[in-house]
Amino acid sequence: MDHFRRIGALRRRLTRAGLPGILVTHLPDVRYLCGFTGSSSALAVTRRSSRMFTDGRYTTQAAAEVKAAQVEIGSGSPAVAAAQWLAAQPGVAMAGFDPAKTTVADLARWKHELPSRVRRSFFQALPVSLVEQLRSVKDGDELAVMAEAALMGCKLFEHILGVLRPGIAEMEVAAELEHQARMLGAEGMSFETIVASGQRSALPHGRATTAPLPRRGFVTMDFGIIHKGYCSDMTRTVFLGKPKTGERKAYEAVLQAQENAVDAVAPGASCAEVDEAARSILRGEGLAEAFTHSTGHGVGLEIHEPPRVGAGQTNRLQPGMVITIEPGIYIAGKFGIRIEDMVAVTRSGGQVLTPAPKALIEL
Amino acid sequence: MDHFRRIGALRRRLTRAGLPGILVTHLPDVRYLCGFTGSSSALAVTRRSSRMFTDGRYTTQAAAEVKAAQVEIGSGSPAVAAAQWLAAQPGVAMAGFDPAKTTVADLARWKHELPSRVRRSFFQALPVSLVEQLRSVKDGDELAVMAEAALMGCKLFEHILGVLRPGIAEMEVAAELEHQARMLGAEGMSFETIVASGQRSALPHGRATTAPLPRRGFVTMDFGIIHKGYCSDMTRTVFLGKPKTGERKAYEAVLQAQENAVDAVAPGASCAEVDEAARSILRGEGLAEAFTHSTGHGVGLEIHEPPRVGAGQTNRLQPGMVITIEPGIYIAGKFGIRIEDMVAVTRSGGQVLTPAPKALIEL
Repeated sequence: MDHFRRIGALRRRLTRAGLPGILVTHLPDVRYLCGFTGSSSALAVTRRSSRMFTDGRYTTQAAAEVKAAQVEIGSGSPAVAAAQWLAAQPGVAMAGFDPAKTTVADLARWKHELPSRVRRSFFQALPVSLVEQLRSVKDGDELAVMAEAALMGCKLFEHILGVLRPGIAEMEVAAELEHQARMLGAEGMSFETIVASGQRSALPHGRATTAPLPRRGFVTMDFGIIHKGYCSDMTRTVFLGKPKTGERKAYEAVLQAQENAVDAVAPGASCAEVDEAARSILRGEGLAEAFTHSTGHGVGLEIHEPPRVGAGQTNRLQPGMVITIEPGIYIAGKFGIRIEDMVAVTRSGGQVLTPAPKALIEL
Repeated sequence: MDHFRRIGALRRRLTRAGLPGILVTHLPDVRYLCGFTGSSSALAVTRRSSRMFTDGRYTTQAAAEVKAAQVEIGSGSPAVAAAQWLAAQPGVAMAGFDPAKTTVADLARWKHELPSRVRRSFFQALPVSLVEQLRSVKDGDELAVMAEAALMGCKLFEHILGVLRPGIAEMEVAAELEHQARMLGAEGMSFETIVASGQRSALPHGRATTAPLPRRGFVTMDFGIIHKGYCSDMTRTVFLGKPKTGERKAYEAVLQAQENAVDAVAPGASCAEVDEAARSILRGEGLAEAFTHSTGHGVGLEIHEPPRVGAGQTNRLQPGMVITIEPGIYIAGKFGIRIEDMVAVTRSGGQVLTPAPKALIEL
């Protein structure tokens, strides 16, 4: 991972924003910029230098991991140390911070610990998150890791097809997915595994419960792993037993919506257009009301990142963005269906990172 | 869980603080107060009424879960809806919020969405988190669930003793712990499972890696499960092979420190006194420098809650608090040892919730 390039890109954005420095405290942002994976850190970047602050538990780890920044070990709050360091740099009269990642209490504390002459005016809330913007466009190293992560997800899906059968608990399915993820070398799951079967599949966020899988019905599995820090995210819905015509038709509608949205992924396309590509298909099938969420979201070091792929989202896709495409329908008391892939935006269109089959699987 | 009692207790604290209302947006706080477990919610409480705001995905779940509050389903931000509702209540000219759980961007947005005549003065940062204070003292229902959660952790430890052997990867140990947790009915792990063996045991936060367990050396396992929303947390360090005298002595020192701190737990004792009970033992053994973190922390709906059990923490233990007692020593390039129990503060002392054996286990 080229952390020097990333900090260089951040500096160019600082210059454009007229800011001499920035305080970065959100851990995934710190990791992205300088490689540090510890649980306590802050990163200060000026046009001339960058310095990462952590505590004594991480001396060895910081020395091994941190690139493109000097390391300073302290015993107090890393963010306060970073704020004080920034304020002491020559020519740095103010610094940006991300108001969406900073609590009211933290900001008050940072200010309190600065010299009184600069306290009031030093910290400037950034109108857009500069680091989030950088992170939304993945570089080649990241794309390679994310493709690996998505493939690990597909292997899990293949494995779980051999496990699914009527009567076993949703929780056992989740346990088996998570155990197999570890066996494949995943660092963990990227979110709480969703296994929702039968009528419960109509819950968009149905956690795995002790409910047994039905003899006949849909089973929706939404899961992801963490690989080298990066999240995967995929959903497949399969059928236990023989689907009725209506169930099969509903599945085909979701699949068509999903594929239409995947086809709409291209540099320059707006997120709203991609959302509409899925939504219009379901609307045409009379299922507009049943599609109760947005089509997708960015994914990377965090499971939910910009951009949001939903109605009214005017921002445009850029090559290097990785988003999910996951339309679904939910019919209370009956069933739910969701199909989700990860898609990387390329120079000419979109590349599906999740090659697991999507045609309806009957078990 | 008696949510009416909890909201009643919150109202008494509001009255004492001279506040006519409060906006609660931290999800574990919302869950604690009204029982809702969804991922999008805000709760507004005044002296007369309480109302929980969520979105359409959660209509069914909110109707089933929410106690002691009316439910309002909306399509926008639940927090903004709650803020607007609060500002529209007769006699509510201001409302408290928790500055440690509110981002600068959120506060700005809440203000922006209020009528301009109240915007500037409506939201008051609470000097202490009222809900956090309530949550730090567990009621009988919570203590029963947490005792169950801690026992599930002990069962996992018993199970894993049959799995540990030289050569298997730390990650396999973590996978087996996590799989077994699911089999026991856990909702998930309460934090990333730590398995650190051999020289790696000297890393206080050593994630499980692909490193094989050594033929001879310590293995530290720090793990917890989530049971009915509540977290367990325990650490045991065992030895593969035959320990040398120095290793055995170091283990005995940590064990003595741990037990001395457990004995110091009592209502009225300060957190600093409990910390010192562990620290003084290790200081006496010349191991003060090797004990690089604090002795423990509160635990409940979140894995880290107040109080902090560390040096300089003057707050006093109260019956119903549940804390961890987890001294450890870390000697770079050699080994690390940590032993951790959950302890409930009773009316007369402390009750260990984690009955797994602590005498050195040699495998």
